[in-house]
Amino acid sequence: MTTLVFGHKAPDTDSTGSPILWAWYLNEVKGSAAEAVLLGEPNTEAAFMLERWNLPKPRIISDVEDGQACVVVDTNNPAELPANINGADVQAIIDHHKLVGGLETKGPIDITVRPLACTATIILDLMGEDTAKLPEAMKGAALTCILSDTLEFRSPTTTPHDRAVAEQLADQLGLDVSDYAAEMFAAKSDVSAYSDAELLRMDSKEYGVGDTKFRVSVLETTAPEMVLNRKDSLMESMTTVAEEDGVDQVLLFVVDILKEEATLLVPNDLVKTVAEKSFGAAPEGDTVVLPGVMSRKKQIIPNLAV
Amino acid sequence: MTTLVFGHKAPDTDSTGSPILWAWYLNEVKGSAAEAVLLGEPNTEAAFMLERWNLPKPRIISDVEDGQACVVVDTNNPAELPANINGADVQAIIDHHKLVGGLETKGPIDITVRPLACTATIILDLMGEDTAKLPEAMKGAALTCILSDTLEFRSPTTTPHDRAVAEQLADQLGLDVSDYAAEMFAAKSDVSAYSDAELLRMDSKEYGVGDTKFRVSVLETTAPEMVLNRKDSLMESMTTVAEEDGVDQVLLFVVDILKEEATLLVPNDLVKTVAEKSFGAAPEGDTVVLPGVMSRKKQIIPNLAV
Repeated sequence: MTTLVFGHKAPDTDSTGSPILWAWYLNEVKGSAAEAVLLGEPNTEAAFMLERWNLPKPRIISDVEDGQACVVVDTNNPAELPANINGADVQAIIDHHKLVGGLETKGPIDITVRPLACTATIILDLMGEDTAKLPEAMKGAALTCILSDTLEFRSPTTTPHDRAVAEQLADQLGLDVSDYAAEMFAAKSDVSAYSDAELLRMDSKEYGVGDTKFRVSVLETTAPEMVLNRKDSLMESMTTVAEEDGVDQVLLFVVDILKEEATLLVPNDLVKTVAEKSFGAAPEGDTVVLPGVMSRKKQIIPNLAV
Repeated sequence: MTTLVFGHKAPDTDSTGSPILWAWYLNEVKGSAAEAVLLGEPNTEAAFMLERWNLPKPRIISDVEDGQACVVVDTNNPAELPANINGADVQAIIDHHKLVGGLETKGPIDITVRPLACTATIILDLMGEDTAKLPEAMKGAALTCILSDTLEFRSPTTTPHDRAVAEQLADQLGLDVSDYAAEMFAAKSDVSAYSDAELLRMDSKEYGVGDTKFRVSVLETTAPEMVLNRKDSLMESMTTVAEEDGVDQVLLFVVDILKEEATLLVPNDLVKTVAEKSFGAAPEGDTVVLPGVMSRKKQIIPNLAV
């Protein structure tokens, strides 16, 4: 049986590139049939990566059959995985998120979670000396994943090891990291094709604070004005998205990668309170700038209060 | 803060030795203060290991404080861990069991689960070249863990890697594997000091089949008659233990390490049905021999039916 390798729903660069990397490893090095698949359309940066490195877009699946062999990368959260994930035969998990519980396996399997910025970094570590066999396109995908998750080493999730791996890849590919990252971020920043609801769900995780359920959405961009120009309709759309997704409030953080700050949209008093209690901010209008805030994992989720 | 390193409740050899090994590594190689602790009295084989290698018996703890830094080894099951485990600061998990869900971490941490027979094998892999620094006592502890979990390579959980690591350790220690394993198993087989209830709980995991909750207990021994001579009082004690522990039935498998078979006690019709449906056995009296059955993980739990 061909093993399916996939990341989380609403695939970003790491959840698109890391399955491709691991499926390559299983096929080409381990001699075990594997296919990278996606749980949805890749975002614009992930699509840029595929095109830039001439990688075919993985097939999109909607669920997994009972007993389907699969490898889960870049998440361990059942809510971000196919509905039938606990009916599938999960054979390995490679991730860099906190353990949320809920995912079960049928037997002892390979699980590797590391507190690194990017799943692709962990994957290259697991490959060890076999990374020498990586073709250029795979190195390019890995580099893109690491630069994406670290926001070119600006995010506080960045570790020296992520950086060293990325710099070595760039060196081998003869790429200038800054030039290449600028291309990536320009691709990610072009969100003109997305509806407001799509933008609110593009890079989003649900998180509860006491009894209040939030959809915590982050848009990383080098052109924040492209998003902020649409703030009125985005704020209107938040009500519908929250209702449809069964949460109390959508929080949208527009992360300016170059200025290293986030702008939080403030549609109502609940979000105003969140801004005050979580970040010590004092919103006056319908947006508030949070200097230095770039990481949902390290800076937003751990501080969230209502 | 000193990090506490511990395995599961009712500590066996691997859950006693692996915390000692990892705490040694954190203290002596990583320069990070750590203490191996136990969640209960070690079993007789684990006690033999401590005495044989002149290792002090780790302190026994009953729970962990909020925010206590800890490393969990040889389990990922909250039911086998301190009641407040999700209030503690779990910093790493090293294990070889299936993921059961329920354990949560506050942030991304190091999690290494491998389908190997023994946690100590994984720990030595994680140490890499630093295993060269292991003092004799630590090598002895690791060897004891691997021989215990593999039943001297007889258990179907044994992988070639576990075996290779153990044989290398024995070679470095100048020990004959068979002679040393015989000493270990003799220690494990002397269960005269335990009450019936203690024996039923010594190496035991709860497992549900449909609506029926079992306590699946295994006693590995080279002297099965020591246990089977007590079968009448053990079967009497099953009722009390099941009631106290909130399960429907205790199943006791007496594993004969040398003959490579298990004897299941059959106190009533429920267990008779289990023996028939799970193992195709046809019990006639109050015990039934299951040829080749040695591993709860690989042979008992996956087949359990009522």
